[in-house]
Amino acid sequence: MKRKRIVVIGGSAAGPKAAAKARRMDQHADIIIVQKEPDLSMASCGYPYYVGGTFDDRNELICTPTGVVRDPQFFMKVKGIRALTRTEATAVDRKRHLITCRNLDTGEEETIGYDKLVLATGARPIIPPVPGTDLEGITTLQSMRDADFLRRVRDEGKVRNAVVVGGGLIGVETCEALNLAGIHITLVEMLPQILMFLDWDLAKLLENHIRSKDAHVVTENPVAAFLGENGRLTAVKLRNGTELPCELAVVATGVRPNTDLGASAGLTLGRTRGYVVDEHMQTSDPDIYAAGDCIEVPNLITGDKVHAPYGDLANLQGRVAGQNVILGNQARFRGTLQTGVCKVFDYAAGATGLSEQRARAAGFDAVSVVTAAPDKPGFMGGNLLVLKLVAERGTGRLLGLQCVGPGDVSKRIATAAMALHGNLTVADLANADLPYAPPFSPAIDNLIMAAHVLENKITGRMKGISSRDLKAKLDAGEKIFLVDTRGADEYEQMRLGIGEVLIPLGALRDRLGELPADKDAEIVCYCKISLRGYEAASLLEAHGWRNVKVLEGGIMAWPFPREK
Amino acid sequence: MKRKRIVVIGGSAAGPKAAAKARRMDQHADIIIVQKEPDLSMASCGYPYYVGGTFDDRNELICTPTGVVRDPQFFMKVKGIRALTRTEATAVDRKRHLITCRNLDTGEEETIGYDKLVLATGARPIIPPVPGTDLEGITTLQSMRDADFLRRVRDEGKVRNAVVVGGGLIGVETCEALNLAGIHITLVEMLPQILMFLDWDLAKLLENHIRSKDAHVVTENPVAAFLGENGRLTAVKLRNGTELPCELAVVATGVRPNTDLGASAGLTLGRTRGYVVDEHMQTSDPDIYAAGDCIEVPNLITGDKVHAPYGDLANLQGRVAGQNVILGNQARFRGTLQTGVCKVFDYAAGATGLSEQRARAAGFDAVSVVTAAPDKPGFMGGNLLVLKLVAERGTGRLLGLQCVGPGDVSKRIATAAMALHGNLTVADLANADLPYAPPFSPAIDNLIMAAHVLENKITGRMKGISSRDLKAKLDAGEKIFLVDTRGADEYEQMRLGIGEVLIPLGALRDRLGELPADKDAEIVCYCKISLRGYEAASLLEAHGWRNVKVLEGGIMAWPFPREK
Repeated sequence: MKRKRIVVIGGSAAGPKAAAKARRMDQHADIIIVQKEPDLSMASCGYPYYVGGTFDDRNELICTPTGVVRDPQFFMKVKGIRALTRTEATAVDRKRHLITCRNLDTGEEETIGYDKLVLATGARPIIPPVPGTDLEGITTLQSMRDADFLRRVRDEGKVRNAVVVGGGLIGVETCEALNLAGIHITLVEMLPQILMFLDWDLAKLLENHIRSKDAHVVTENPVAAFLGENGRLTAVKLRNGTELPCELAVVATGVRPNTDLGASAGLTLGRTRGYVVDEHMQTSDPDIYAAGDCIEVPNLITGDKVHAPYGDLANLQGRVAGQNVILGNQARFRGTLQTGVCKVFDYAAGATGLSEQRARAAGFDAVSVVTAAPDKPGFMGGNLLVLKLVAERGTGRLLGLQCVGPGDVSKRIATAAMALHGNLTVADLANADLPYAPPFSPAIDNLIMAAHVLENKITGRMKGISSRDLKAKLDAGEKIFLVDTRGADEYEQMRLGIGEVLIPLGALRDRLGELPADKDAEIVCYCKISLRGYEAASLLEAHGWRNVKVLEGGIMAWPFPREK
Repeated sequence: MKRKRIVVIGGSAAGPKAAAKARRMDQHADIIIVQKEPDLSMASCGYPYYVGGTFDDRNELICTPTGVVRDPQFFMKVKGIRALTRTEATAVDRKRHLITCRNLDTGEEETIGYDKLVLATGARPIIPPVPGTDLEGITTLQSMRDADFLRRVRDEGKVRNAVVVGGGLIGVETCEALNLAGIHITLVEMLPQILMFLDWDLAKLLENHIRSKDAHVVTENPVAAFLGENGRLTAVKLRNGTELPCELAVVATGVRPNTDLGASAGLTLGRTRGYVVDEHMQTSDPDIYAAGDCIEVPNLITGDKVHAPYGDLANLQGRVAGQNVILGNQARFRGTLQTGVCKVFDYAAGATGLSEQRARAAGFDAVSVVTAAPDKPGFMGGNLLVLKLVAERGTGRLLGLQCVGPGDVSKRIATAAMALHGNLTVADLANADLPYAPPFSPAIDNLIMAAHVLENKITGRMKGISSRDLKAKLDAGEKIFLVDTRGADEYEQMRLGIGEVLIPLGALRDRLGELPADKDAEIVCYCKISLRGYEAASLLEAHGWRNVKVLEGGIMAWPFPREK
């Protein structure tokens, strides 16, 4: 029997996974990885934590759990896979089933035949088209080389000021890493908010948290130019004219699929310029598969093809490709929920499915709610979580969850992601049987509570108002009767100071006379997390007021400045 | 309009929740809680943490998040609900819509009419029918009074030795609490293992962990008698004759639904002696609803009615009952997955759905796998998790997950519970889009990895053997060729010592000559977590050995003593 030759181009996440899976499916196949970089199987999502000093041994990014570096010797001995590092694939001859590659050290070229080819060439950073991007002191955080450079910056301790350009996942993680290195950071984002997988209101809570760590955050202000002297960066200039003096700039303004190789060979690219693949990870050429950051896949909720450059998906797709190149198209990867999470200093931020904004853009009649609550009983020292749950109004179908705060975000995102995979509704979530014990969650989990409140909203039992809408109304001078329903002691410690009246919930039945005589007056009730605010609103409605709203998430989800 | 009178019997979890929800649905209803205990809305799942000293203020168990004790004054002022404490409901006259109750302090009796009645009378402890249960020094941990008693025991510091009878959730939590109080504990279980929601192999890992904390664990040995002198407990005697000297025994041998009141009134009870309710929480009397630990509900996987006394479900059921007594049968609670989690010293243990044993007992053709892996990348300091995933062989439908270890158990259980709610399959789970970032999970989450291995097992790509089956074979003298595929350094640090040969995976291709000449010989491969063990098995199969198995979960899931 002729040995099958499998060639994998790309050695970071999807590539090695595809190669290893192919090996397990066929111990006799001839499997080759072609990798441009000097390293293999880099844990690239770990770069910010190496830069920030969470760990010090660079090898931890490229070694097995038992401490063996995944170099070509390892791949050969342990996996029986040839790995050619510092080797760039320069052309694919689909007709003759050949690739051409060049050794980047020697310049030598060679051709390698394949029966099946797997493209796992990843993505490359988008660099803003502004002057000065070639100055010394500007980097991305996309490669081991970038990580090594920034770690040196940290260890040398000479850089005082840095600008991180781009408020996405990598930008925010880099911001934290450099802040931990003692560098003063300004995070610059051209859009009105950071972390676009969140809706504006939750993103603002994170911006506030980042600012509380003595890092600056600038939004809605793109970089106009990188300024320098003698070829070295000295400042970043923004569109509004501001100049931010700095010795270092990290550009994290997104990535695009790296598909030049396949495009030259005539493979079909999609809207995002990623390879078009079917659910078997097969490209438009049946002998060529692709996986990881170089492909586009369906968003499972909208059906739209999206570029979803996540390390976990790269591994899953690589596994599917690796199986299918050996066994034929058995394994499937159906799509993504674009689930993501990141650590942001003492907070985490995560999302799965659609934000409210994206749901509306996709044509859904979306309804959402913001809730806030601790992630454990008070006596176990719970930490705050702010959730935003999005559903389709008519069907109650869940569309997405966002979650931010110092509490256990990743658990709620993982749980909600699985609910989305199961096409569950708000009603399903409202009675979900989740694991409860005081060390791990409140008796009614934050996610279930959000479903309860959203159910109240959908059935019209509760009328909510978002912090953003309330602020806009107040800024427009609208007359709204604001009731803070907490206790006097709580009010002394913390309050919005936006013209509210303090009427503790327990006193409300006796103090209805203080409410507006006009039963159509707009009233907004709230408390710390708006649970008592909701009870107050129910009470007022029962007494005839017809326009009573609850401030969603209460004071804890209010992203604007407070009096106290 | 006549005010509706809602009477709720029971003031712990389901009762107050039903009353509060009813209030929010109808601000004019007359709502009364009848509560036998002096306290209301006790966070009873928190008792072990109060006893163990996680917190010191008893009021935290009965107060709102803002520190207000939920006493009758609170219920009246804040909720407009009358709460009669120290008041026992003694009879229900269904025809006349009246209950009789007695004030336990004054002895006075009164009757209260109702339009709708909610029974939330909870469960009561099962006390083993053995001599000596009335001795001083024997308690349960079911009430605030019990918690107060055990907390005093802790604070006084006089008790040296205690026996916890029963290795369920409460027994295990009590064991930890008293151990933290400096008391030497023996945990006694009549069944062959503790925590029956786990299969034997995972339960044994927990027993080992408890023993490592200097607490004794005795299984398969019921209590025969409580022994005493002068009316005080002096020892617990087991069936095998062992006497365990102790000054304190906590009986935690389960609970049964407390349904005498409704049974006397002719309400229908089920197999578990819990009230039979429909999914609206309506009993056999349309004007009487029931919720919480006094009812039975369907297991969502088997359809069987079960008694599921969990605090979170009590709240959810109470909410459904509270809504339905006001609005009619709109809200539904469909059933339980019997999801649970508990802290066990530095480990946690959790389960959702069916264990393998229960799945088989319910008639499923169940297939399972045990996997072990850290819950984060090594460079982020991951902690071990051992998972057991159970599915139906033919359909791949997920049936249950168990998880134990020092890692983040509750997240995996919550995620798997939602997968069960969505009727997902192993294939769905294998490509689930969970949130990945190094501070929160490995690139391939433990749960997804378990799905991958189970998929390999179902498709016949991997033949697994459980630690228990391997041990039984070895004990029976069967000849098995055992290959530990780790490195020599790892082998020096830790090893099973059950007759294995050390052949590191990277050397296996060159050392095939050391394997049995008989290609039908039984071979078992493993490593620390059996990932390399699986790769080794694939390699051996490719070289013609026909009976190669992988030890599931590797050394980390081996519950028996190791050589090192």
